[in-house]
Amino acid sequence: MSVLGIDLGGTKLRVAVFTSEADVRHKENISLAGCQGGQVGSLICHQVRQVIQDERFVQDPVQSIGISVPGISRTREGTVWAPNIPGWTDYPLLKEVQEICGSIPVRIESDRACYILGEMWKGNARGAKDAIFLAVGTGIGAGIVADGRILRGANDISGSVGWLTFNTPFKEAFSACGDFEYHASGTGIARMAQQVLAEEISYRGQLRLKPSAEISSHDVFDAYAKNDPLAIRVIDFCVGYWGMAAANLVSIFNPEKIIFGGGVFGPAAEFIPAIKSVALKWAQPLSIQQVSFEASALGSDAGVYGAGYFALQTISSREKS
Amino acid sequence: MSVLGIDLGGTKLRVAVFTSEADVRHKENISLAGCQGGQVGSLICHQVRQVIQDERFVQDPVQSIGISVPGISRTREGTVWAPNIPGWTDYPLLKEVQEICGSIPVRIESDRACYILGEMWKGNARGAKDAIFLAVGTGIGAGIVADGRILRGANDISGSVGWLTFNTPFKEAFSACGDFEYHASGTGIARMAQQVLAEEISYRGQLRLKPSAEISSHDVFDAYAKNDPLAIRVIDFCVGYWGMAAANLVSIFNPEKIIFGGGVFGPAAEFIPAIKSVALKWAQPLSIQQVSFEASALGSDAGVYGAGYFALQTISSREKS
Repeated sequence: MSVLGIDLGGTKLRVAVFTSEADVRHKENISLAGCQGGQVGSLICHQVRQVIQDERFVQDPVQSIGISVPGISRTREGTVWAPNIPGWTDYPLLKEVQEICGSIPVRIESDRACYILGEMWKGNARGAKDAIFLAVGTGIGAGIVADGRILRGANDISGSVGWLTFNTPFKEAFSACGDFEYHASGTGIARMAQQVLAEEISYRGQLRLKPSAEISSHDVFDAYAKNDPLAIRVIDFCVGYWGMAAANLVSIFNPEKIIFGGGVFGPAAEFIPAIKSVALKWAQPLSIQQVSFEASALGSDAGVYGAGYFALQTISSREKS
Repeated sequence: MSVLGIDLGGTKLRVAVFTSEADVRHKENISLAGCQGGQVGSLICHQVRQVIQDERFVQDPVQSIGISVPGISRTREGTVWAPNIPGWTDYPLLKEVQEICGSIPVRIESDRACYILGEMWKGNARGAKDAIFLAVGTGIGAGIVADGRILRGANDISGSVGWLTFNTPFKEAFSACGDFEYHASGTGIARMAQQVLAEEISYRGQLRLKPSAEISSHDVFDAYAKNDPLAIRVIDFCVGYWGMAAANLVSIFNPEKIIFGGGVFGPAAEFIPAIKSVALKWAQPLSIQQVSFEASALGSDAGVYGAGYFALQTISSREKS
């Protein structure tokens, strides 16, 4: 049996055909090349059509399609809200793709949900039924699986953990993204470094080597690796936030695994033991002993694997019912 | 069809026979009268036997039994950890009750899970598939239902929200119960009042009328109602904590309802609008608009109703499979 996974990102499309054992039969990345609105929908439909018609897959055709989107999949309506794709406030992706592929089932899921499904299928959460993917990149979100099922919430916006609060004095700026994301996302790390640079006028370290406004989280990690005191201050603060957020998720969910991924993990993966130490202090003491904190095994492929696994689950659940 | 719900509390047993429409056919409360360990198990078995043999129910016998326990129900093992029942660290309740009732299915669930099930069946969460019961009494816990299913976690200890942290400077005392519970449970309210009394030596209000060590949360609520400045300070602090905790649950779960219950709500129910105002500031902005905050409709009966509903669901899921 074959399934098709598609992962729509902000700049590219990842397409892969998998066997039911998560082996890759075909895989390619396609640049969005500045596409907007309906062009992105057309690009996805074109890829679906190509795979369906591909002679290599005639003997063992694709039987289910899963699509990961960078935003909210409104599962009742079949529409997508994706803030980084211009025009996708309520985009009717399901209808468009379904018209291409007839009776082949199509399911659309948020990227964060696909990340944890990917790790459960082929990554570091294999065998787990209760697992969380904490995605820390430009923003912060969590894909949550409880007792084998994706947590969606009443209106498909569960896992918005960027909005977790740790009772920082409230700032209006949190209204756009939340306390946790404001401080401990990739964007947050860069912003915090810029703020500390503005305060510490006597600092002469390597973070002064480029204009403050151009500093990225990767510059901060790079400076940290060279024992830069300002970078250490910023990263230590974030380790505290990541640890408290993980502690709260552990106390609430009693999961087997928390997988740290997204662009920041990446470089922050080396801090996972330190994050666990912080969480150990705050979390429910039995639950924290039962959970394993790990880096994503699949990295930027987590979404496309998750989309594939979601497609596979769609068939399995149909066969059961 | 009839089901039996039993709610074991720290001092009494609530027993009720319900119709499948949540109407009460029989209900009684039995004092534990200081029973410990196996005596409590025997008392439960005795009640089960009495109901099964009761002539009033011969025409429409009990077809399923649900039991709510004040602690952790280890669903795989059928054993119970209940810190307030001496000797119940790993008590084999399922086996004992099952021996009494033969082929009638028996399920045991934590009290917090039963609270939200009760509110979904006959209380303020009717019709909801995504709902949370925030139980604030001596301790703090949450019963969570996501997409119609109880959230259990990998080892049945999900919902331990008393351990939520809001980045208070860490104290060793949190190791016993967690930041949120330390500050904003009934015990926490009394403790905070005692601490503030010790600091504010010039205070001469009504909370000085009894020895500090005897002050309860109810004394603090009573003083609040009379505009006592110290009580206002303590309660306002707790409203902030309850609001942040609710905000975090809203951002994570995107629920339809959060029900506030337990002994503290009760008197704190009047603060639910203020709690919502705090949550509005911190939570995911779409989710917080979609959720309703309400007081428990069932009060101290939430557990026995939930046990009954759990029993009913057990039959329904058997009939489906």
